[in-house]
Parts: sequence; structure tokens; C-alpha cells
Amino acid sequence: MADRRAQRLAALVDSLTAAHLDGLLITSLPNIRYLTGFSGTSALLFVTARDVFLVTDFRYQTQVRAEVGDLARITVEGQSLWTGLWQLLAQAAYVEVAGFESAHLVHRDFQRLVESGPRPRWRATTDLVEALRERKDADEVERIRTAASMATAALDRTLPAIRVGMTELEVAGVLEKSIRDAGSEAFPFPSIVASGPRSALPHARSSARQIAAGEFLLMDFGAASDGYCADITRTVVLGRASDEQRAVYDVVRQANELAAGEVRVGLRGREADALARDYIERCGYGEEFGHGLGHGLGIEVHEAPRLARTADGLLSSGAVVTIEPGIYRPGWGGVRIEDDVHLAADGPELLTQFTHELLELA
Amino acid sequence: MADRRAQRLAALVDSLTAAHLDGLLITSLPNIRYLTGFSGTSALLFVTARDVFLVTDFRYQTQVRAEVGDLARITVEGQSLWTGLWQLLAQAAYVEVAGFESAHLVHRDFQRLVESGPRPRWRATTDLVEALRERKDADEVERIRTAASMATAALDRTLPAIRVGMTELEVAGVLEKSIRDAGSEAFPFPSIVASGPRSALPHARSSARQIAAGEFLLMDFGAASDGYCADITRTVVLGRASDEQRAVYDVVRQANELAAGEVRVGLRGREADALARDYIERCGYGEEFGHGLGHGLGIEVHEAPRLARTADGLLSSGAVVTIEPGIYRPGWGGVRIEDDVHLAADGPELLTQFTHELLELA
Repeated sequence: MADRRAQRLAALVDSLTAAHLDGLLITSLPNIRYLTGFSGTSALLFVTARDVFLVTDFRYQTQVRAEVGDLARITVEGQSLWTGLWQLLAQAAYVEVAGFESAHLVHRDFQRLVESGPRPRWRATTDLVEALRERKDADEVERIRTAASMATAALDRTLPAIRVGMTELEVAGVLEKSIRDAGSEAFPFPSIVASGPRSALPHARSSARQIAAGEFLLMDFGAASDGYCADITRTVVLGRASDEQRAVYDVVRQANELAAGEVRVGLRGREADALARDYIERCGYGEEFGHGLGHGLGIEVHEAPRLARTADGLLSSGAVVTIEPGIYRPGWGGVRIEDDVHLAADGPELLTQFTHELLELA
Repeated sequence: MADRRAQRLAALVDSLTAAHLDGLLITSLPNIRYLTGFSGTSALLFVTARDVFLVTDFRYQTQVRAEVGDLARITVEGQSLWTGLWQLLAQAAYVEVAGFESAHLVHRDFQRLVESGPRPRWRATTDLVEALRERKDADEVERIRTAASMATAALDRTLPAIRVGMTELEVAGVLEKSIRDAGSEAFPFPSIVASGPRSALPHARSSARQIAAGEFLLMDFGAASDGYCADITRTVVLGRASDEQRAVYDVVRQANELAAGEVRVGLRGREADALARDYIERCGYGEEFGHGLGHGLGIEVHEAPRLARTADGLLSSGAVVTIEPGIYRPGWGGVRIEDDVHLAADGPELLTQFTHELLELA
């Protein structure tokens, strides 16, 4: 672990050198976790070729030393993290030009930097750490695979407990307990348990609505292992599926399998998106698939790369992405089938092993 | 509900007028929810004295109309929310000077504003909406009370299920299922279930650690009802408490009750903090209470005001705050007892009704 973090820091320093920066202020907590292992919710990290400084607050004084060890010089600040940063920068007088993370620094804190004095000079950067995070190593893929196993094990335990008349929240409770019992350290995002017409809301939460016979039940949830997330969606029917439900489901299923089988390193995000979208459009449901095909997955449940109509980036070797086509009809219902796929050099590898059959729950 | 939102928007427009602003761009999702009722995760809101514009994306096209109705002019944007915003601003040519939320706009998006052209001129603002949110009305307090009841009901159901040898994650699973069964629409923050020495980590998560006899078990968790959060902590012992455990517990309990009984509208945040801190210091544990006494609670689980040594602000009438003193000894364990208190005009009102006795679980 220590070695891997040192490699990541070295790769980041290479990026800084290429960008003519003497240092980088990192305010994104997932980026800090990736580089140092620190998992707390309050930190600033400053990286140069010579030094790694980490500032956190009292609440993490025990945790930060356990997680970071001697990889960084740690300051536990009683007042403001920024006070700690100014003191550290005073120790790093060789830093003349430093970057900050434009996508992860709010304007108020940007003003602090600008007002902090003549040195260092600050420059906006984007995606320096994110670009490293996109290419997962074998250990990272293994953690996502473990999280995916937790998620599918939880679904296995939950499906037999679902009954007509339960509320979405009650189903969420059973599902989330099963996720914990499977060993998940976190819920990477709020579980979606959406029934009937609510399944047509691509970002529904779970509600007090009772599930009726004959309805779709869409479950989109995650698990996390050792800092890495999985994200899966399955849609089932309570009782017997209608012909129309089955027809829509089959289109989504085909689209999922087409894309999950064909997604590859070197495709552009929009080309990956088209693998599923072209099929759904040919079937006449194009207007009803209004979101992108998927997103990268790792320390965060949404990270690079994007798979969407507007995504021009090339998919990197080692990325892990979701493949989640859906068809949504307001007032009627919706279907989404989501899997996690590792883009290995020799082709896509499915991490979420769970049937695509349309399950009709008794 | 519609009336209340209209009142809030009118109060905000008064603030804008006082600040010589023709409009305000709101990028904080909790602020957007407070003003419009929209609970999605992707939105921009622009408020002027004449117009209320809301931009969201496809995923929320059904939900946004149900939640917002005709309170705002709604744009559902297929590409970028910012594209939608530029089009709306073109319709509001009377806006010459507009504010943005300095604490809720990342530098990258601030650059978009600056580069968007000569008009409007943009000015940084802070806390315009947050100041309104601090003073809860009766309906908001009622929602927090409901959420608090869900949290205490869940704890009631969970305690009898806890056994020596269970992991923290298993306890979290039972607790979170009970929170869902009580009707909570969300987990406002990751549940902390921390046992033995891990109870000394003020921001532990739940882990796979097995709970042993004689250990502290600290549970810090929340519930949410109709958009509003509750946040509660209790610390129990598995089996019989030692004299030292009981001594530390009693200090925290006294500090909690002193502060919850004396916290009042018009105190400064640091004066409220001192209600508990002075007592803990007199008992000789001052060094071991390293965080602030509490924080405001509402749509967010951390909002204004702050109760801490460095907090100069006056506590507003109607605020709801946590009172959560703690004592933490690295390697030994920690105790925290947290309640939610409404600062009514006639004195503090406890919203979390749950015993402060030191429970020794069989």
C-alpha cells in the first residue's frame, strides 16, 4: 500500500513538472484518499517534488497517523486548515508557482489563496489526479470486484423478502441491512428503490409508496470495500410481467449486453454510449433513454470517464465503468439494468455477476 | 408550502435589494431546495425581483414539475446546466449586477461566469440564503421533530438486538434497517458505530471490528423527514461499565444536560460552547474534548449556526442545534452524547427524547 501511494505521488510529481508547477494544493477528498490513504472528511494536501504535507483537524488525529503513517508530514490544526497550510507554505519557500484544483476549490477558498500574498503564484489546474485515478491497478479492480460481490450478495438476500404491499422504504431497509451484512463499509449513494410509475424517475429516492402487484420495482444501489465502490441496478416485476413490460425490458437488456460486450479501451465516451443508444433508437425508444450510458467508478461512484453523447474522451486501459441503459415512460414506469465493467487490455470484464433475466417475484 | 416558498423568495429578494444586486445565482442544492422545494441533485437557480428561473437536467423532468409547480420558470437542459443559464440570462436583460454564492461555486464554474461576457457583472456573496434558513418556522421544527422521533424509535429497536461478538457493521445494519422501518427517507450522513478504542475516534465510520464485552459502543446516526434531518448520538457499554467508564460518561452527561438546558437565543456560539466546555475543563477533561459543542441542523446535517470556541455569531431565534459534548482517550475509548435542541423564543426545547442513563447492554 505504502509503495503504491509513493508511486502515485511520483506520477503526480511528473505531471506537475510537465505543467511547470512547483507544487499542487489538493482539496478533493477522494484525490487525497487516493494519494495518501487518508479517509477523513477534513483535509488539505500539498504535494511538491520534495515534500508531502497533509493538514487535518483534531477529530482525525488518531486516524490520520494510522492511515498515512510517514508518507506525509502531518499537521493537526486546532483552528482552520488554512492556517495550517500557510504555516506549511512558509516552510516550502522554494515553491514559486503552485497549482490548485479548479473543480474542487470553492470561490471563497480561491479568494483565500489569492489574498494570501505574493507567493506562491497560484494557477488553476484540472484533472491532474483524476487522470491517474482513471487507470485502475489490479488491486483497485479487486476492491471494486469485492464491493460488487457484496452488492450482488445483498440483492440475492433481498429479493425473496420482497412482497406486494411493502413500502419502498421497507425494501430499502432490507436491502441496506443485507449490504451491511455482506460487509460493505458504506453506502456510496442513496439507494433508489422505486416502484410503479416512480421507476420512470431516473433519480428517484426511496419513498413511503406501497408496491402493488404487476408493477416494476427498480433497485439502484451500491456497496464499498476498502474505499472503492460498486454500483448496480436491477429492475424486477411484482407478479407477472405484462407483454409491454417484457418488451421494454428486453430492449434494455439487449442494449446492456451489447454495450457491456463491446465497450473497449480506446473508444471515445460517445462511441461507447452509441453501442447501447443506437440499438435503443432502432427499437424506437430513443426518446425515452435520456441520460448517458455510464460513468467511471472507483473511490467515487461518479468519476472519469464519462460515457455519454457529449463525451469526447478516450476510454483508458484499466478504467472501470458502469453500463446502465434505461427506458423511462412518465406515468407508466421505467427499466434500467446497470453493471460494472473493467476495461482490461484484452477486453471488457464484467464485475457485477447477477442475472439479466426478468425476475417475476411471487 | 407554496406560500412558504414564496415568502422565502420574497425575503431573499429583500436581501438582494439591500445588497444592491439585481439577481442571485444559487448553486447550493440545499438552498435551492429551501427556496423551491426541488430535491434533485442537479440544478441552478436564478432569482430576481421579477423572475425565478430553475435549470435542471433530463433525469428530473417529471420530478421538477411535481415539486416546483409554477413557482419557477423551469428549463430542462439536455446538455449543460450552464447553457440553460446563459439562455435564461439573455431573457433577463434588466439584470446588470448579479451575485453568486462564493461558498458554493467551484473555481471552474466561477470562471464560466467571468468569461460569460460583460453582463451581468458578478459579485461574490455569502450566506444570503443560509441566514434565512437558520431561523426555522414551526413547520420546519416539526419536520426535525419527526426525524428525531424516527431516530429514537430506531435506537429503541436496535439496542435489544446488540450482542457481544457482533461487528460494528452488523449493528449498523440493524440500526439502519430500523431507521428505514421508522420511515426515514434518507441517511443524512454515514452512521458511526464505533466500539472499544474506536469510540475514541470522533469521526469513525463503522468497521468489521467485533464488539467485545466491557467495551463502549458509540452510535451517531440520523434520520430525515420531508427534507429535514435529525442527528443523535448515544454511547452504551456491553456488559458492566467500569468505574472509569462511568466517571467519564457522567461528565459528558452533565455537560450535555447543562448546555441543553442553558443554550439560548442571543448567546454567541462560543458562549454556548462554553456552557459544556467549562464544566468538562473543571472536571479535568478539557484536553479530551477537542471538537465544537454543536452545529445547526435542518435541510443539511451541518448548517448555521456553529457552537464552538471560535464561533462569534449570535444564535438566532428558531435555530435548531446539536449539543454534543464528548471525551475521547486514544486507545481507551470515548463517550459522546448528542441531542437536538430548538432555540425557541422562551427557551430551549429538546427534540431528541431518549434517556441519558448509561445503558449496560446484556
